[in-house]
Amino acid sequence: MILLATDFGPGGPYVGQLHLVLRRLAPEVPVVDLQHDLVPFRPDLAAWLVAAHRELAEPGDVVLAVVDPGVGGDRLPLALRLDGVWLVGPDNGLFEPALRRARTVESFAVAWRPERLSATFHGRDLFAPVAARLARGDRSALAPATPTRFPGWPDDLPAVVQLDPYGNAVTGLRAQTLAPDARLEVAGRTLGRARTFGDVGPGAPFWYENSSGLAEIAANGASAAALLGLAPGTPVRPVAGDC
Amino acid sequence: MILLATDFGPGGPYVGQLHLVLRRLAPEVPVVDLQHDLVPFRPDLAAWLVAAHRELAEPGDVVLAVVDPGVGGDRLPLALRLDGVWLVGPDNGLFEPALRRARTVESFAVAWRPERLSATFHGRDLFAPVAARLARGDRSALAPATPTRFPGWPDDLPAVVQLDPYGNAVTGLRAQTLAPDARLEVAGRTLGRARTFGDVGPGAPFWYENSSGLAEIAANGASAAALLGLAPGTPVRPVAGDC
Amino acid sequence: MILLATDFGPGGPYVGQLHLVLRRLAPEVPVVDLQHDLVPFRPDLAAWLVAAHRELAEPGDVVLAVVDPGVGGDRLPLALRLDGVWLVGPDNGLFEPALRRARTVESFAVAWRPERLSATFHGRDLFAPVAARLARGDRSALAPATPTRFPGWPDDLPAVVQLDPYGNAVTGLRAQTLAPDARLEVAGRTLGRARTFGDVGPGAPFWYENSSGLAEIAANGASAAALLGLAPGTPVRPVAGDC
Repeated sequence: MILLATDFGPGGPYVGQLHLVLRRLAPEVPVVDLQHDLVPFRPDLAAWLVAAHRELAEPGDVVLAVVDPGVGGDRLPLALRLDGVWLVGPDNGLFEPALRRARTVESFAVAWRPERLSATFHGRDLFAPVAARLARGDRSALAPATPTRFPGWPDDLPAVVQLDPYGNAVTGLRAQTLAPDARLEVAGRTLGRARTFGDVGPGAPFWYENSSGLAEIAANGASAAALLGLAPGTPVRPVAGDC
Repeated sequence: MILLATDFGPGGPYVGQLHLVLRRLAPEVPVVDLQHDLVPFRPDLAAWLVAAHRELAEPGDVVLAVVDPGVGGDRLPLALRLDGVWLVGPDNGLFEPALRRARTVESFAVAWRPERLSATFHGRDLFAPVAARLARGDRSALAPATPTRFPGWPDDLPAVVQLDPYGNAVTGLRAQTLAPDARLEVAGRTLGRARTFGDVGPGAPFWYENSSGLAEIAANGASAAALLGLAPGTPVRPVAGDC
Repeated sequence: MILLATDFGPGGPYVGQLHLVLRRLAPEVPVVDLQHDLVPFRPDLAAWLVAAHRELAEPGDVVLAVVDPGVGGDRLPLALRLDGVWLVGPDNGLFEPALRRARTVESFAVAWRPERLSATFHGRDLFAPVAARLARGDRSALAPATPTRFPGWPDDLPAVVQLDPYGNAVTGLRAQTLAPDARLEVAGRTLGRARTFGDVGPGAPFWYENSSGLAEIAANGASAAALLGLAPGTPVRPVAGDC
């Protein structure tokens, strides 16, 4: 299976062109669009979602992730095998949290180049063909290489990394790293934890462990982003539950 | 075939995670995304579209519909078999109009629970696995149960239930229940019926029977929602055609 | 393979209903959503993208393209075979640039009519069933016919035809028709050409040959549409590179 996560947007022709390439090169491999609304140009935010998505993949699956502001420049095209799952995309930090959390790592650069490589759409021209090959068990496009590491990054990012269509704000914090009664300070408010929407009053903001295991800020029946003024990058601070 | 209708939005990771589960559990069953922009948190509006979508399904198909503000609370997870078509989703009115219009009804609750059930994403963890089983003919997850009924609801809802991407406003009124020359009062205007867009002048508002059989308010080459100030929930009143 | 390009929007039930018909009538044919955010009601703009998409198709493929403000009126439903690729959609100029660029042309009208033809959704009721048949090699729905031609249109449109999700502005100009050092005048600015985003400073606007071969106006890490005030239809003027 090939899982897609990009900043290509729900509109536009980019996602379709990825699918076109995958259908032509690996017609028998199912392709799932996990998410195409990653924050544009921000691999440093998208990385935390890519690490969460990687947990949904099984050995042999390929996660094709593209947030690639440096496309056409000299950043390396990567293929990492983390605990048996392939991750394919640009070498710009997008896979840093996933790399740190992996037990076994094999790392490669994409050595193959297509006959025609556009300067701005390596997702279609380079990464998708390689993902198709890897999904079919063919590693011939790869050569061993070392990915760039980002030692200054935290293990979990205390910030909003994504707004979802409901106006919920996903953070880069795994809920399992927080105390059960932890609170989150964000935008001048301190929010308690709830299990689900109906556990708080209408319109009340709270945080909860989302279905990907990340701490997420929401409001019951309302947009937490609008209510609290949240945006990708807004800092979040966990505080002890007894304050 | 499995038909999806949700309020998960065109972005976000939720639709993709449904597909991921369905592909893993029922790889041979085609899945069609009918609509993921149902009005969030409003099963009372979405129900009228679910009833229309159900008409597109054939016996053996599964309509997986999720608008579920009570997720993680005590509302029942339902599986209804209406004229041979399965409807799977929360017991919150989402299936009330479809139920009323069915000739034969079998009703069940989902008795099975997954090993890991998130508090906020039963679409992925509970409803999708059950839909996959039902599409393969396996009812083992079900136990007979009676859905909550909503006797105060009308048979057709005289209100806007959805804005489409063109700014057309779909109502909860089946066109077949209206007189051929009926007019619709909405937002202080009285609109006549037309057959199609080109039958009225540029920018002129009108109503017509849409491709799902519902009365829909539109304008020729323009957004009726912007022109008339329509939103989900805006009341509509059918009036005799000769006024 | 069937490639879809429409103005149906990323939301709404229209794209899903196309897929439903295609899955029922040609379950073995892969379907790819190339683009559903073509500018609504504007075949004169969408035509330039349809011509570019047609280049992605291979002989035997079907491009199903629908931007159809005249739906339900007397415009002809067309099926064109251009260099072995089928194009199916309304006779309103949507295929004019593709027609001009084709080496071999066979042209047909859709003579078949379905039992139930809605007045407003020929995409689902007429064009999709015909696309399914053509993808399976069945031409029985067709009768020879001559498409309407648009002799006043240029060979390349010097205007913005689409904004993409990043705020890039795609033009109707094939990059190969411009001098390598051509500049583009747009919205009172004169923009130089770059190869990719990283070749200009942060926020700087430029134009480049996009991955479909069209001249596209972009800004590094920013929305060119917001920066320059661009919209579909904004005129663009190529000027010699040495000015």
